[in-house]
Amino acid sequence: MSKNKSRSAILLIYCPDRTGLVASVTNFIGKYGGNILYLDQHVDLEKKVFFMRVEWDLENFKIENSKIGAEFDINVGKKFMMKWELSFSDDKLRMALFVSEMPHCLYDIISRYHAGEWHVEIPAIISNHTTLNNVAEKFSLPYYVFPIDKDNKKEQEAKQMELLKDLNIDFIVLARYMQVLSDEFISYYPNKIINIHHSFLPAFPGAKPYHSAYARGVKIIGSTSHYVTAELDAGPIIEQDVVRVSHADSISDLIRKGRDLEKVVLSRAVWFHVQRKILAYDNRTVIFT
Amino acid sequence: MSKNKSRSAILLIYCPDRTGLVASVTNFIGKYGGNILYLDQHVDLEKKVFFMRVEWDLENFKIENSKIGAEFDINVGKKFMMKWELSFSDDKLRMALFVSEMPHCLYDIISRYHAGEWHVEIPAIISNHTTLNNVAEKFSLPYYVFPIDKDNKKEQEAKQMELLKDLNIDFIVLARYMQVLSDEFISYYPNKIINIHHSFLPAFPGAKPYHSAYARGVKIIGSTSHYVTAELDAGPIIEQDVVRVSHADSISDLIRKGRDLEKVVLSRAVWFHVQRKILAYDNRTVIFT
Amino acid sequence: MSKNKSRSAILLIYCPDRTGLVASVTNFIGKYGGNILYLDQHVDLEKKVFFMRVEWDLENFKIENSKIGAEFDINVGKKFMMKWELSFSDDKLRMALFVSEMPHCLYDIISRYHAGEWHVEIPAIISNHTTLNNVAEKFSLPYYVFPIDKDNKKEQEAKQMELLKDLNIDFIVLARYMQVLSDEFISYYPNKIINIHHSFLPAFPGAKPYHSAYARGVKIIGSTSHYVTAELDAGPIIEQDVVRVSHADSISDLIRKGRDLEKVVLSRAVWFHVQRKILAYDNRTVIFT
Amino acid sequence: MSKNKSRSAILLIYCPDRTGLVASVTNFIGKYGGNILYLDQHVDLEKKVFFMRVEWDLENFKIENSKIGAEFDINVGKKFMMKWELSFSDDKLRMALFVSEMPHCLYDIISRYHAGEWHVEIPAIISNHTTLNNVAEKFSLPYYVFPIDKDNKKEQEAKQMELLKDLNIDFIVLARYMQVLSDEFISYYPNKIINIHHSFLPAFPGAKPYHSAYARGVKIIGSTSHYVTAELDAGPIIEQDVVRVSHADSISDLIRKGRDLEKVVLSRAVWFHVQRKILAYDNRTVIFT
Repeated sequence: MSKNKSRSAILLIYCPDRTGLVASVTNFIGKYGGNILYLDQHVDLEKKVFFMRVEWDLENFKIENSKIGAEFDINVGKKFMMKWELSFSDDKLRMALFVSEMPHCLYDIISRYHAGEWHVEIPAIISNHTTLNNVAEKFSLPYYVFPIDKDNKKEQEAKQMELLKDLNIDFIVLARYMQVLSDEFISYYPNKIINIHHSFLPAFPGAKPYHSAYARGVKIIGSTSHYVTAELDAGPIIEQDVVRVSHADSISDLIRKGRDLEKVVLSRAVWFHVQRKILAYDNRTVIFT
Repeated sequence: MSKNKSRSAILLIYCPDRTGLVASVTNFIGKYGGNILYLDQHVDLEKKVFFMRVEWDLENFKIENSKIGAEFDINVGKKFMMKWELSFSDDKLRMALFVSEMPHCLYDIISRYHAGEWHVEIPAIISNHTTLNNVAEKFSLPYYVFPIDKDNKKEQEAKQMELLKDLNIDFIVLARYMQVLSDEFISYYPNKIINIHHSFLPAFPGAKPYHSAYARGVKIIGSTSHYVTAELDAGPIIEQDVVRVSHADSISDLIRKGRDLEKVVLSRAVWFHVQRKILAYDNRTVIFT
Repeated sequence: MSKNKSRSAILLIYCPDRTGLVASVTNFIGKYGGNILYLDQHVDLEKKVFFMRVEWDLENFKIENSKIGAEFDINVGKKFMMKWELSFSDDKLRMALFVSEMPHCLYDIISRYHAGEWHVEIPAIISNHTTLNNVAEKFSLPYYVFPIDKDNKKEQEAKQMELLKDLNIDFIVLARYMQVLSDEFISYYPNKIINIHHSFLPAFPGAKPYHSAYARGVKIIGSTSHYVTAELDAGPIIEQDVVRVSHADSISDLIRKGRDLEKVVLSRAVWFHVQRKILAYDNRTVIFT
Repeated sequence: MSKNKSRSAILLIYCPDRTGLVASVTNFIGKYGGNILYLDQHVDLEKKVFFMRVEWDLENFKIENSKIGAEFDINVGKKFMMKWELSFSDDKLRMALFVSEMPHCLYDIISRYHAGEWHVEIPAIISNHTTLNNVAEKFSLPYYVFPIDKDNKKEQEAKQMELLKDLNIDFIVLARYMQVLSDEFISYYPNKIINIHHSFLPAFPGAKPYHSAYARGVKIIGSTSHYVTAELDAGPIIEQDVVRVSHADSISDLIRKGRDLEKVVLSRAVWFHVQRKILAYDNRTVIFT
């Protein structure tokens, strides 16, 4: 994915913690003339794991983009058993949107895309319903319908996966997509599928969380964006936010207030992902802000 | 509990919803010269229950305090099958504090009491440990120790209840008291025992919620004050609040941040209770703010 | 604006405080068979002003819609010197949107409108630039351009006002419209023009608040929606919200985080207005929630 | 202040930004066997200033504590024109508390101190009133009264400064101290005096901010802790927080809600200061969290 005229390079790293890690990485960058724009690191002292995000200006960097990864691995990565991921600030990630019948997250994402807030492409909006086709059409975005029922789920998912592969999709956003993805599907996109769940997880997983929140009489409701894993609503959390409610709020008030949370929390998660600011590890996320 | 020179009367009411409820109550007050200072009502449209809090100035009110309740019941309450509770703004509620070994909530409550923030008496601080006796002593508050183990729980609780009765206690605050009260104890104080749980309920009930929150990787932690019922951490919620955390926060950071939440959330709940601003119904609370 | 088959009537009232106000209003409604769905009142004890919002079901109400106002005024309003405003839940307010070049609030409003979140009509989007015409077009909404410079402002405003009058506009939303309206314009729409200011007012009024917030080193930024009055950014506040920032956030980060606040805070204000939940008095608002 | 058996060393650094800074610092630490526990850095890209906080384990560090500063300066600091400050995790800062008549912040601070939340000494509580002497006495803390009026301010401040010097005070906390300190006083403690202002600065500086907030009709109130500089309420902000209010809140409700904010926001600021997590630069703060 590397190109030759990127403005900056971004390296996400994790490895067993030991002395000299930061120095080794920054020495490598400095040695070839890279000017560090951003560096953040985190050490999980309990598990003894080191996490780092470093971004540097490529203007005077002496290694060409296509060789940076290999050079880094030989000089630094292998020595410290690093898992690393290199990207460039002008790479445009290709995002697929999965939706069902509720439009608020879709509208929010498309309007950000259209206003140029995010550096992404949207090659596909995928749904099990035709309902939101009219939204996609307004913005001339391709809309694919895969109606799913009990009998055809496996087969429809296979078609979805084929489409995603054909379109060279980098990551998937479930914008209130009401279907549960199969483990197989999920396994193809580890930490690449972002979901929004309309509760403050781990409270109220599963269906109808606003109804449950109302019944429990909570004074605050929330929304949670997370990477999808095989266990439902249990993947690594990327972002959460909350809003105050009271006895005076009916279930429909919770739904109304929750919609605003959902769209903002989902969009923040997408933004972190697109900016390569997330490292998921052991079902938790490190978010470099 | 009524006296003759109260400044204002407070009536908390709930009953089946029907037309004419607000008019009947306000007509009763107006007819005897009461000037309404505060009125708030709420209708649970789903369950068809009406809730109301009304407070009026007693200066020119023509019924003497000791007879207001009976007059109200005859004129209004019975007709609408109202459950109601009358109190007076200068009644001083008697609060018992239950603590264990952590001092932050105790300090917060005592300092509010000492600064005159609340209109209460504290006739007893009760603990299963001697640890916080020194705090009580500083403020010359009576501190009673009832060490509890597996074998003596029933017997010790009986003694606690006797003490509470002797001291004419109106309500109980569990200020990080780490013991589970028996169903029998709880049944004596329905909606009169306020607990603080150090999580955003219903997430992480039970022991060690900060450890669970850390393991789950949440981005926000919370605190919940609620009335104690037979089911652990499942009583009607009075107040909740949250604070943002990140991957950089260790468990001890969560505990540190959580302490500030706990004391504020518990104290808000006590304040609502003391101001007679809470109606608990069907495991939810109406909070008249 | 009244019709015969409204589902409910909404009365917003304020007047000098005295005894018997709530009873008089609720007696009037009850006498004619109205079932109160919602009642909230507030007394400003300092200024001795009474505020009330009451909503009742019209199904069995014995006065026809077109006569309710007059009957209320004769029976109750005049007696208490009430200022009141009657509306019906199925009235559809006609909203004009004023925009300039930033699309985020416009997108947010249009998508809510299109998704049916609000019970309004949008007969006009008005701008001093052609920039956002493409957004309006996508949703087939009429877009009017009135380019404004130093010399033609008065004349262009006159044309805008004529258009608003022709279109029978009920209220105006300034969705990041960057022009200051003249006092004359404002005087035609008292408490009918909602603005979003991108700061936590009264901090940082006027131009470039994010730049000022950055320079001041605040740890939280905010957004404020308010009714427009002759004094710039000083009208009655309807809603505010905030988001945490840090030293790591550049001005462009503040702008990015602020955009999400702006659209949510503006939309909440519009929702309150459309639901007739706002009474503005003495440069403050009573919001019946 | 260095000792020989510290558990960890903390270095706060700022200097003009250039390549190689992180590598130089971490190389220095690594070369002498230090294991980095925490590293965070920030670059102000606009002003081209580099900020860093690094903390390392001293167990196997080969330079003795008293020589670390000099060695660092020779090897790294001078070369990059660094301003730096070295401290050790077991240094106990000596804090003076200035109070007036309101007790809530004082109680909060003393109870944290007493519960061992902070690693500090409190050699003096200083006041212009005798009011809070009883609080100090309860905790056996020395309480000094310097009554201040228009005529004796200069002279009393001189005595205060002498006392602070005698007691070897490291930093000062103004816990709702209602006096304005002279420029001279302030100049002796640059970025060493922490104030709590009871508004969301820069809104409502100066006296009676809750009254001003009420009059302006804000929907959110705040609290701000900052370092004191010559210009009133205009020093670098350390921490802010807010709480929602409504039309139903009177001025005394704002004061009540604000008290809880004040104590929490002040205590967070003190905690950051004690943990050496703050770098103040150009009237802004970098807070390493």
